[in-house]
Amino acid sequence: MNRAERTARNFKIVLSYDGTDYHGWQIQPGKRTIQGTIEEALSKIARKRIAVVGAGRTDAGVHARGQAAHFKAALSLSEPELFKALNALLPDDIRITALKEVPLDFHARRDAKGKIYQYRIRLSREIDPFVVRYALHWPYPLNLKRMREAARLFQRKGDFSGFSSNRLLHPVREIVRSELHKKGDEIVVTLEAGGFLRHMVRTIVGTLLEVGRGRIEPAAIEEIFRDKKRTLASPTAPAKGLCLLKVLY
Amino acid sequence: MNRAERTARNFKIVLSYDGTDYHGWQIQPGKRTIQGTIEEALSKIARKRIAVVGAGRTDAGVHARGQAAHFKAALSLSEPELFKALNALLPDDIRITALKEVPLDFHARRDAKGKIYQYRIRLSREIDPFVVRYALHWPYPLNLKRMREAARLFQRKGDFSGFSSNRLLHPVREIVRSELHKKGDEIVVTLEAGGFLRHMVRTIVGTLLEVGRGRIEPAAIEEIFRDKKRTLASPTAPAKGLCLLKVLY
Repeated sequence: MNRAERTARNFKIVLSYDGTDYHGWQIQPGKRTIQGTIEEALSKIARKRIAVVGAGRTDAGVHARGQAAHFKAALSLSEPELFKALNALLPDDIRITALKEVPLDFHARRDAKGKIYQYRIRLSREIDPFVVRYALHWPYPLNLKRMREAARLFQRKGDFSGFSSNRLLHPVREIVRSELHKKGDEIVVTLEAGGFLRHMVRTIVGTLLEVGRGRIEPAAIEEIFRDKKRTLASPTAPAKGLCLLKVLY
Repeated sequence: MNRAERTARNFKIVLSYDGTDYHGWQIQPGKRTIQGTIEEALSKIARKRIAVVGAGRTDAGVHARGQAAHFKAALSLSEPELFKALNALLPDDIRITALKEVPLDFHARRDAKGKIYQYRIRLSREIDPFVVRYALHWPYPLNLKRMREAARLFQRKGDFSGFSSNRLLHPVREIVRSELHKKGDEIVVTLEAGGFLRHMVRTIVGTLLEVGRGRIEPAAIEEIFRDKKRTLASPTAPAKGLCLLKVLY
């Protein structure tokens, strides 16, 4: 064990980012990613490659107001010093909002108890250039009452295979909160669960939109839960409306 | 006179744009500009080069919620058809919010009676990635009372040479409204005048910030009006906080 390993400390960070100009969270060669950008800043401070472990991956274009991550580094900086140094090196569209030292065995993904996502749908005939990066623009009528009814059907423990883009051995998840609110000219969908399958939030929102347009009945949702077939569910809603609001520990 | 000229119609448009990713309004070779992007879209519709005349130029990074412009084109499309076609061809960060046919002698710049600009200063220790494109981030204390007092001094008719980055033969302008409001965690400066000199709004805001920080007294503003020297005034505030709210006709 070398000296650096012996004196390594573990840090938890909370992050806000505008995902528009990034190819998602996860590092990909030759592409600008959130994880890659943070690791670059950290590596400048530590003068060696530091790996950042996120609570979960966000797709290209998805935003965050409360993503969480951890990294281990043998640094002598205090928490406020590291917080400032990191934000000074990060671009304005990625911000650390909190940083604290945690026990060495803390793991941002494995210790996460849950996640809260929000999806914004802006109801308006015309696009607003100042909102279009952060909300799906929706110029068609939607039946809010039916969408609320449908949203309630997702608040359950069950096999969400029909609402995911990949097949897992353990596809059972529990959504403990599935709500739909009208706020000004926007519909905001809030989903909370211990964990989500890939594209699950965006497929649920896609399905809610199909219900709102009258293309499918809320009852069809029960059918998708029974048949577990992704082909029955609706198109995945675009990334830009989605925001990872909070990771629960 | 050819047929196209004979049947040319004149159109007034009102525009919203997020100026972040543009090199300002005015066409520059090899650079992405607002005017250039609109002319490109129009030229696709008209199948010939159409020139767009703006009410005024906005600098690189400056936004607009109510820029105005006109263009002449021999088109047979109705107003709603042209409105839709233009927005369909424009990127999401430039939007036409109104379009109407106007008399052939209407001129967006010469007929403008005034302009209203707004400048947003966000008071917060940390940068918010979802606001940083649209407001100046200001983490230091500001004396609002003194800034309000100073803002009132700009509401006048006078020689604004000291607050502009170029020298004009006729530097007299009249600011009919100079206000400063606190709105949540933001200070919003609103200025209305028949016309503004180059960088005038941003230099006035820069001066208000110097007053707010206690670096200069409000009385120093009178001195700049007397001496008409740009060197006495404060640094030009960054473009991103500025938005052209409305052009008055």
